[in-house]
Amino acid sequence: MIEILPVRGLPALASGDDLAGMIRAAVAVRDGDVVVVAQKAVSKVEGRVVELADVTPSPAAVTIAADNEDPRFVELVLRESSAIIRRRGAFLICRTHHGFVCASAGVDRSNSGGVGRAVLLPKDPDRSAATLRRGLGGGVAVIISDSFGRPFRQAITGVAVGCAGLDPIDSFIGRADDDGRPFAGTAVHVADELAAAAGLVLSAAGGVPAAVIRGVAWRAGDRGAADTVMPPDRDLFGGWSPPTQPARDG
Amino acid sequence: MIEILPVRGLPALASGDDLAGMIRAAVAVRDGDVVVVAQKAVSKVEGRVVELADVTPSPAAVTIAADNEDPRFVELVLRESSAIIRRRGAFLICRTHHGFVCASAGVDRSNSGGVGRAVLLPKDPDRSAATLRRGLGGGVAVIISDSFGRPFRQAITGVAVGCAGLDPIDSFIGRADDDGRPFAGTAVHVADELAAAAGLVLSAAGGVPAAVIRGVAWRAGDRGAADTVMPPDRDLFGGWSPPTQPARDG
Repeated sequence: MIEILPVRGLPALASGDDLAGMIRAAVAVRDGDVVVVAQKAVSKVEGRVVELADVTPSPAAVTIAADNEDPRFVELVLRESSAIIRRRGAFLICRTHHGFVCASAGVDRSNSGGVGRAVLLPKDPDRSAATLRRGLGGGVAVIISDSFGRPFRQAITGVAVGCAGLDPIDSFIGRADDDGRPFAGTAVHVADELAAAAGLVLSAAGGVPAAVIRGVAWRAGDRGAADTVMPPDRDLFGGWSPPTQPARDG
Repeated sequence: MIEILPVRGLPALASGDDLAGMIRAAVAVRDGDVVVVAQKAVSKVEGRVVELADVTPSPAAVTIAADNEDPRFVELVLRESSAIIRRRGAFLICRTHHGFVCASAGVDRSNSGGVGRAVLLPKDPDRSAATLRRGLGGGVAVIISDSFGRPFRQAITGVAVGCAGLDPIDSFIGRADDDGRPFAGTAVHVADELAAAAGLVLSAAGGVPAAVIRGVAWRAGDRGAADTVMPPDRDLFGGWSPPTQPARDG
């Protein structure tokens, strides 16, 4: 049996806070647990919160924002992007500097700690996960989760943007099925399934910044979430298409 | 706390079997549970298993298969598709007749019950879910899950191809975040998160055809999984592009 335990009762988070210590104070983490931490909590303690009042939008951001969006928000999205993959009006599907393809390059204004603020993804979520893992004692696996939309399906689900301790992908290559037939290319993104499972308790209202998943027989590994981005030679959907915005400062 | 309980010990499944009865015999299902059933189990009891020896490939299937794939398998994939969305050699990303976009139109040879067989998706997985739900007493929600790949990310994760009893999407529109800021377009695909969570125990080796998820505060609803396909007017990735194969019989 697998258990998913919400981590509740954490105070409002600010830059420099000891998030691992707060989680340990809130829940008795055991060796073998998977601790899934919401990206927004990690970004807050890492100081990845921006006051929109401090952002000067570029001409490109002003053009894209038009009358429907805050050009300062678009400016942050452009800064966090290595390419714009799709655009409809001011809605941008971006490739982030980590290689993730998602709406608004992961920049989010909800539950940012104040109206007029935006939260950016951690600079290096895999490193953030490794840091949290050390802070949690090293016997656990840590996943940093965000919620992404997907082509072809409505609505968002939890995905892993950072990972430490467990191998994010479980490959069946070399194993045989029940009929003795070798699996061809089957590989399961366990880290994404864990992030989605945690999504069932990570409240969008912000009250549950982390979840502990107990009872999963995860396999140790050194790869991070960024290592599970579809590589250019296997990408059929233009995730590595060239930037549609000119390279800019900032 | 949420619990995920694997349903074990079911016999090999055959067309006409009472899958709901088998699940009830294996685990004490309670009102409020979400029962996630692997697509392959549902397809087997619904007779959606094909002997490749009985399939005559069309010229198009022979052309696509070339030297790398069984043309009879490609033929099944073409029959299960309303469009080919992407192709690399004999590897096809298809839109199914239900509207799902996935590799090989969901046709799968692993754990099919015998080498030389392929399992097709249920004809109407939402109806399959509703039938199972009645068989399980009506107080539960039922999800039929499969594992799909995703653009931009490696490996597969559990997704809902059928759903009954619960609203597959939880929309935050109209609610406010912790700072009083109204959520704009946020909506979570709860059914996909449940299918991914179940994926942590649904063994690709076939031994665990279902999982019970307990402790989720799901909301009742009448929509199925097919209702959560991205509609054409919001599709930015060509999921509704016209067929690249001519319409054919079969």
